Amino acid sequence: MKKGGFTLPGEAGYEKLTLELAEKWGADCIRDSDGTVLSDEILSSGIPIYSTICMVRSVNGWAKEHMNMLGRNFLSSDPVMAEGGTLVIRPLEKYFRPQITVCPDDPVKEFWEVRDRTAGTLVPPGDWEWDPSAETVTVNGTVPYHFYTVSFLACRIWEEISMYNHITNGWGDREHLMAVDPRYPEVQEVLLSYLDGWCRSHPATRVVRFTSMFYNFTWIWGADERQRTVYTDWGSYDFSVSPAALREFEKEYGYRMTAEDFINNGRHNATHNPPTEKYRDWMEFTGKFVREFGRKCVDLVHSYGKLAYVFYDDTWIGVEPWGEHFEEFGFDGLIKCVFNAFEARLCAGAKVGTHELRLHPYLFPTGLRGEPTFAPGGHPEADARRYWACVRRALLRVKIDRIGLGGYLSLTEPFPAFHDEIEKIADEFRTLRSLHEAGAPWETGIRVAAIQSWGPLRTWNCSGHMHEHPELPLNHIYEALAGQPFSVRAISLRDIAEHGVPDDVDVVINAGREGDAWSGGGAWDDGRLLAAITEFAARGGGVIGVGEPSARRGGFRHFRMADIIGVDREIGKTVCFEKYKYEKKPHFILGGEAEPHFHNHTPGVYALGAGTEVFADGGDGIVAAANEFGRGRGVYFSGFTYGAENARMLYRAILWAAHREDLADVYTTDSADFECAYYPSSGKLVIINNGKDPGTVTVRTPEGERTAELAGEGIAIL
Amino acid sequence: MKKGGFTLPGEAGYEKLTLELAEKWGADCIRDSDGTVLSDEILSSGIPIYSTICMVRSVNGWAKEHMNMLGRNFLSSDPVMAEGGTLVIRPLEKYFRPQITVCPDDPVKEFWEVRDRTAGTLVPPGDWEWDPSAETVTVNGTVPYHFYTVSFLACRIWEEISMYNHITNGWGDREHLMAVDPRYPEVQEVLLSYLDGWCRSHPATRVVRFTSMFYNFTWIWGADERQRTVYTDWGSYDFSVSPAALREFEKEYGYRMTAEDFINNGRHNATHNPPTEKYRDWMEFTGKFVREFGRKCVDLVHSYGKLAYVFYDDTWIGVEPWGEHFEEFGFDGLIKCVFNAFEARLCAGAKVGTHELRLHPYLFPTGLRGEPTFAPGGHPEADARRYWACVRRALLRVKIDRIGLGGYLSLTEPFPAFHDEIEKIADEFRTLRSLHEAGAPWETGIRVAAIQSWGPLRTWNCSGHMHEHPELPLNHIYEALAGQPFSVRAISLRDIAEHGVPDDVDVVINAGREGDAWSGGGAWDDGRLLAAITEFAARGGGVIGVGEPSARRGGFRHFRMADIIGVDREIGKTVCFEKYKYEKKPHFILGGEAEPHFHNHTPGVYALGAGTEVFADGGDGIVAAANEFGRGRGVYFSGFTYGAENARMLYRAILWAAHREDLADVYTTDSADFECAYYPSSGKLVIINNGKDPGTVTVRTPEGERTAELAGEGIAIL
Repeated sequence: MKKGGFTLPGEAGYEKLTLELAEKWGADCIRDSDGTVLSDEILSSGIPIYSTICMVRSVNGWAKEHMNMLGRNFLSSDPVMAEGGTLVIRPLEKYFRPQITVCPDDPVKEFWEVRDRTAGTLVPPGDWEWDPSAETVTVNGTVPYHFYTVSFLACRIWEEISMYNHITNGWGDREHLMAVDPRYPEVQEVLLSYLDGWCRSHPATRVVRFTSMFYNFTWIWGADERQRTVYTDWGSYDFSVSPAALREFEKEYGYRMTAEDFINNGRHNATHNPPTEKYRDWMEFTGKFVREFGRKCVDLVHSYGKLAYVFYDDTWIGVEPWGEHFEEFGFDGLIKCVFNAFEARLCAGAKVGTHELRLHPYLFPTGLRGEPTFAPGGHPEADARRYWACVRRALLRVKIDRIGLGGYLSLTEPFPAFHDEIEKIADEFRTLRSLHEAGAPWETGIRVAAIQSWGPLRTWNCSGHMHEHPELPLNHIYEALAGQPFSVRAISLRDIAEHGVPDDVDVVINAGREGDAWSGGGAWDDGRLLAAITEFAARGGGVIGVGEPSARRGGFRHFRMADIIGVDREIGKTVCFEKYKYEKKPHFILGGEAEPHFHNHTPGVYALGAGTEVFADGGDGIVAAANEFGRGRGVYFSGFTYGAENARMLYRAILWAAHREDLADVYTTDSADFECAYYPSSGKLVIINNGKDPGTVTVRTPEGERTAELAGEGIAIL
Repeated sequence: MKKGGFTLPGEAGYEKLTLELAEKWGADCIRDSDGTVLSDEILSSGIPIYSTICMVRSVNGWAKEHMNMLGRNFLSSDPVMAEGGTLVIRPLEKYFRPQITVCPDDPVKEFWEVRDRTAGTLVPPGDWEWDPSAETVTVNGTVPYHFYTVSFLACRIWEEISMYNHITNGWGDREHLMAVDPRYPEVQEVLLSYLDGWCRSHPATRVVRFTSMFYNFTWIWGADERQRTVYTDWGSYDFSVSPAALREFEKEYGYRMTAEDFINNGRHNATHNPPTEKYRDWMEFTGKFVREFGRKCVDLVHSYGKLAYVFYDDTWIGVEPWGEHFEEFGFDGLIKCVFNAFEARLCAGAKVGTHELRLHPYLFPTGLRGEPTFAPGGHPEADARRYWACVRRALLRVKIDRIGLGGYLSLTEPFPAFHDEIEKIADEFRTLRSLHEAGAPWETGIRVAAIQSWGPLRTWNCSGHMHEHPELPLNHIYEALAGQPFSVRAISLRDIAEHGVPDDVDVVINAGREGDAWSGGGAWDDGRLLAAITEFAARGGGVIGVGEPSARRGGFRHFRMADIIGVDREIGKTVCFEKYKYEKKPHFILGGEAEPHFHNHTPGVYALGAGTEVFADGGDGIVAAANEFGRGRGVYFSGFTYGAENARMLYRAILWAAHREDLADVYTTDSADFECAYYPSSGKLVIINNGKDPGTVTVRTPEGERTAELAGEGIAIL
């Protein structure tokens, strides 16, 4: 159990530390990191080497000579009021100029748009002019007191990860790296040639780890320090735009994607909003390209007898591991940076040979919010334990093949407690992996489906990391589910409208806010969707609604599934209707616990009638309720915050919705801080303490109760 | 000052009390009430008599013989799920059967509708059947798992005010009064004949007070005690429906109003929602009828040399005093029941000869919430003082001609303190009236307009009383304005779109919730509206937005006037956008006061940029902000609760928005609990204490400071 499945970041100049820790942590692989190199001593240590490469920002010299092949994206100015006659707009002024400029070669009239946002109309191209030297757009013949915007094709001259690291770490006059767009055949040629040379010059490398494929997640910076980040979305395809791509798309799809298709009334196509048909086409178009050129890169790596892994964090576009065609890349492994459990599930479920987690803390002096980690005042061993306890829940449920760290190993030298902690974590990991290898853990048999706009593509994740969108109830639901004995999948609302809820689903969860991608917005205009959910529930299915599930204005109910889940929401349109005066009662779902509090609680939710069993509420509406509907059951939560008690409540809600209250005492613990998994093949019961406090826990099993003492964040294997 | 302008409710059997109190309170008029009679001794006292009459429920014998001429309205069943084949729906089951039934004579297929609410379609009349004996609708050929509703023409067999009084007072087997619909010529004949006989038999009556005209406010009761009131709206026209009216409308307007035009996806046409074009037509059609037949009644009263007053409380339909054609009734007086100040302004501003307020408490044993008033444990003198202090603010601003009481005078006998209090109130009233008669009070000169969907029709009131819709910020705004030295009007958003903001408006206020009538909903789809407001602001106008002002999905901004008021709201569609990190600073609007708290606060509001001056916020967004825009100014409040400090803040917000900060110290008090008015013609300064605690107040006037000591709820005239 002491060796294997561990990737260690090596560092030149710290050969002794590298090899000592490789031994201590059982590393079977040494990697470099952004900014580190491996010395010959390490390369010749006999331990397999694993090298990172980020192709698109690796040809900076060439990129500088070919600025017209850098990545582009559409951006909009803020609305500017006209007073009639001529209006001058400075489209670039709100953006961070070291990142954003305009490519002088781009045909402005072909791609840019000036829009009257008050009237909702396009200004004819003849009525405006771009002055590249003044960086102004002059609009003629404006309508007085209307607001106008300029949508322009931005050219990015500083690759975002490089920019972030450069600014955060104060790299001064170190070169700004630029990202080229492989949509241009010349770029593909340059990149393949670079990769070929790289493979040739890295004979010791066993695994080529692509830090990215080609298009970074969207990260637009602003000129004003008080709004440094204008827009960030890990899932959106903004950065895959270029004149070449736009023209190619038009050839392939027979219509043109306009600036407005990306600007979308200033909202862009954030992953949190339901996609338009055109945007779906663009994603398909781009995804196909990324896979095709990606495959060429992978094949080239393979031709050198090396393995190709992909790191899924900075560049999601077209690389989504739960995308239908992910296997077509031919990757040998997927590496996922994980802060929490659902990210581990995302990794584990991908169709790829090796699943590896990059653990936190990253070996950097400071953490995400600038707090010290490997710096004076830091407690990296506690951080490591906490992150591990967050992620480990998922590893009880599913098998992960490898774990590892990233960053500067030298920074860990003053923190021997961290060295010990990672040693323990690596052992725990290997133990759990071996249990999975012996046979899968016991599951309830209940099959849960998150139903949202994106379907499988966004399984186990909305977009970005949990800490970036803590407001989204579905992120918290995914997190709770990540450590629970259910089969989990995601299905798109469109699929359900077209084909019904699949027979092999027991409980569906719709968790979101009115109009967002997770609740579904316009998808609910299709009556077939409600009919399908109604049929599913009437025939015995479980339906869980969270926040503003199925919310859509214009129907008989605001929550379209109101009759199933027993509640609807007052949004100011039905204030003349008296609400049913329910009597709050205890419920199986709550067990004996206190009523939940959700940080993203939706106010104004009321009971439809006598059938609605309300078991939690507050001054501004219902917090939790249950409802029998036909042969099925509906549950409502006004929001969802991941936490021990709430996760337990969700677990019981799913059991109840699935008519499986009988499972409430099967492999469950008597305290919500603890979770467990039973592995029938090996006869082992694993209990984990997700909390920081030590404690005694009793697990109810079909064979009786088992009790154990666990340290804070500890583990017991019985 | 001791006599006049006071209407006293007399009561037979209490002649001495009646005449004593007439003397004490300076009554110049004695009235009867619902359930009281006046004896000959009172009638011959020489004091003018004023009699109440409610025509539509006064011909019960005839009504019983003509059930097909009772009032009707459309109601809907709840949605019921079909499983394919035949579905049985009981449309009446959710309603209070003593109120609601079906008229056997009504042609069901002509008026009723069965709707598939899942598909949003109408079921052909041939596919369903009504069984009057079983009270069921059987729908054939249903789509499995779709929800269906039945919309039916309900016939009301118990007039609502009669029903409420009967049930509240336990009148046992006293006859249930029914309301006839004067849309039927036979009914008109009966009513006019009844009125004629009534006038003839009431020679002592000087004033005929119509307790109602013809159609009660909408008040639908339910079968379930836990939801006794299904639907209540003081402004909606549901109860003006009848087969005769529907057919007449079709002749006049060339199209038919269907059940769905009233059911409106289960929401009815609540006054709080923007009206449809068809509903506006129906209101116009009904209003014209009410005025025409109303005028006939008034003329008949006049022909007997009597005056005709109307009580504006139970029956608003077509009688709205701020309606364009109110004068056409020919009423001599308007009596308004008042709980608070905006109701007094509503009354005072009507174009009618005499404006009278019916004060609270009503002379009933219990108050609105069942608490004792003229019953053991009651303190009617304190109640009277409190109501008066709430209403009096308005009477400093505008002239009211009369006040009065209603109910059973005998009940006051054990409460001599009440007698004394009313004596004081009557004197205060007469003093204020005399000041107005000498000349209008000083005003700021600032002209404020509430801009909403209804325009002037809903000036000084949204719908119903303040305590029925305390959630509406506009009700609270109206209440604050009711005691302030501004000129106030209401303008419809449609008028503004078509004609711009009138030149004689300085500050506009849009206060509501997304999609409601007060914010405007779909009105904002018309770009001319935003253009007009933008022009107004750019040229120097003040724009105040409250709650979710101008909120409408689908535009560049969620608050369409965001660029003017400096804030927008996160509704889950822009979570990928970083919000501007503002720095909160003091502001003129806040003065030195604490940040406000609004009970109807809108969460998630953020600053657009550096120009937004945020001066109040909380954990969930901005509470108050100001923004310079062009030559104008915008202000935002996240909600509004009427109260002394908040009213003062609104006052300062209006001054600021109008660029009149110079008025901050002109006729203002040093404590928000106190307000004042200066009457230049008489040289009097009136100071009132709206609070319950006594105190010393200093008024800042152009001539220097004036100080006074006031009792709690007291008044001083300097």
